[in-house]
Amino acid sequence: MDSDDPAQELADRCAAAMWADDRASRGLGMSAPQVSPGHARMTMPIRADMVNGQGNCHGGLIAALADSAFAFACNSYGEVTVAAGFDITFVAAARLGEVLVATAVERARFGRSGIYDVTVHRTDGTVIAEFRGRSRSLGRPLVP
Amino acid sequence: MDSDDPAQELADRCAAAMWADDRASRGLGMSAPQVSPGHARMTMPIRADMVNGQGNCHGGLIAALADSAFAFACNSYGEVTVAAGFDITFVAAARLGEVLVATAVERARFGRSGIYDVTVHRTDGTVIAEFRGRSRSLGRPLVP
Amino acid sequence: MDSDDPAQELADRCAAAMWADDRASRGLGMSAPQVSPGHARMTMPIRADMVNGQGNCHGGLIAALADSAFAFACNSYGEVTVAAGFDITFVAAARLGEVLVATAVERARFGRSGIYDVTVHRTDGTVIAEFRGRSRSLGRPLVP
Amino acid sequence: MDSDDPAQELADRCAAAMWADDRASRGLGMSAPQVSPGHARMTMPIRADMVNGQGNCHGGLIAALADSAFAFACNSYGEVTVAAGFDITFVAAARLGEVLVATAVERARFGRSGIYDVTVHRTDGTVIAEFRGRSRSLGRPLVP
Repeated sequence: MDSDDPAQELADRCAAAMWADDRASRGLGMSAPQVSPGHARMTMPIRADMVNGQGNCHGGLIAALADSAFAFACNSYGEVTVAAGFDITFVAAARLGEVLVATAVERARFGRSGIYDVTVHRTDGTVIAEFRGRSRSLGRPLVP
Repeated sequence: MDSDDPAQELADRCAAAMWADDRASRGLGMSAPQVSPGHARMTMPIRADMVNGQGNCHGGLIAALADSAFAFACNSYGEVTVAAGFDITFVAAARLGEVLVATAVERARFGRSGIYDVTVHRTDGTVIAEFRGRSRSLGRPLVP
Repeated sequence: MDSDDPAQELADRCAAAMWADDRASRGLGMSAPQVSPGHARMTMPIRADMVNGQGNCHGGLIAALADSAFAFACNSYGEVTVAAGFDITFVAAARLGEVLVATAVERARFGRSGIYDVTVHRTDGTVIAEFRGRSRSLGRPLVP
Repeated sequence: MDSDDPAQELADRCAAAMWADDRASRGLGMSAPQVSPGHARMTMPIRADMVNGQGNCHGGLIAALADSAFAFACNSYGEVTVAAGFDITFVAAARLGEVLVATAVERARFGRSGIYDVTVHRTDGTVIAEFRGRSRSLGRPLVP
């Protein structure tokens, strides 16, 4: 968060612009992202409307958290970038009341494409899911 | 939906039991599933709390719809079956006010594993996303 | 294989040009592909240099057969098209002396991207693997 | 490679037993693997019978190298472990005469399942492909 680092400053402006717009992630109770170039971290508490009768979180909502962190990470360089797709593997069940943390890390960028790995874990570090996102830049600026 | 067909009758009972429990899918506004053995179909209208400022649906919520249809399809044989993971490719943007339809079809079953293909499309048939789910049966009955 | 069908005629010319060039697929003993627009079918006998000591075929070579069928299918429209990536799930072991058949079917095309599903099976139809390829057209002609 | 480390000693014995059996990897010119628990590294020179007329390596053979490294990594704990499937994204073309290096790293193990990330790169470190393998232990010993 060094204000003298132009890449960080750009990542922060991209995240702020996206977050202001992102009703879906806010509606799911996610925290505003912490970003740096190619990285993002977000949290989501598991609410009663996210689970089944056994108290296990819907896998699609775990994926939604990872997808949000992926989106903030791949848009941190200032170009509008979309998700082409992703793969997720579920490692453990997530339970009502737990807080999930998604940590997105860039793995590769080549041409307009990118690969981002997102680990979803509990606050104690135990892994819930491993996600790999495939991004595609549209080649136009995200912020003025 | 032939009530004389025991496999269909079992699929219907499994779906009813799961649906009664599935607060997450109901909270996202999904329709109760139509199921047959190895198949499921569900819909979800895209609400204002599912989109960004440009009116495009969050990809993770498109995945959540597909994941629900996958879950109902792979649990239609009467054994508790979980998602081991899935892959999704986004084909087109989905917009506020559209109704998404997810159609899940079994592709393979082997041992306790299964592969299910889910297409998410608009009501006019245009494809929004292609999803492939990997399931794992736990080997215990889902309904009495 | 109707010679009066221009789309089929183009697919045949694309396949012939690629096959003449494809030392790798020929070196692995694959058959020349049968193609139609968006589709391809190829076979590969499992040789002694493709297996381990238990007589099971190397999974990477099963993937190579599927990848070849995918390449012929996605290049059947006359534009140079590359594999962006693929996912494969192994369903059953393949054994020394068996002949594997890969059948590639187009699932979606959108912009310069495509999704192709390839099933690898034995000649008796039993499934060995399910593969999903992601293609990307380069926008230039494959044949004169 | 500390001979006083029982986990490393087991990994070495597993690799030796598998390598003696692995006619496919040897036939493709791969090097014997360097292993440690959960990790493996292998190389493969790109031969004339692995490329097309433009000198680009067949993607399926790049996948085969990654799949071999994955197999050695996930079998390094002494239990027979098979590939359930994998995903690969191609980052750059690989050319005739280059030597490819595959580095496999364990990402997660849970129950009998595992996730392994394999990067295929040139000897100068430039990335050719990113691979993620899904493993499944059979629960029986690989070596006496």
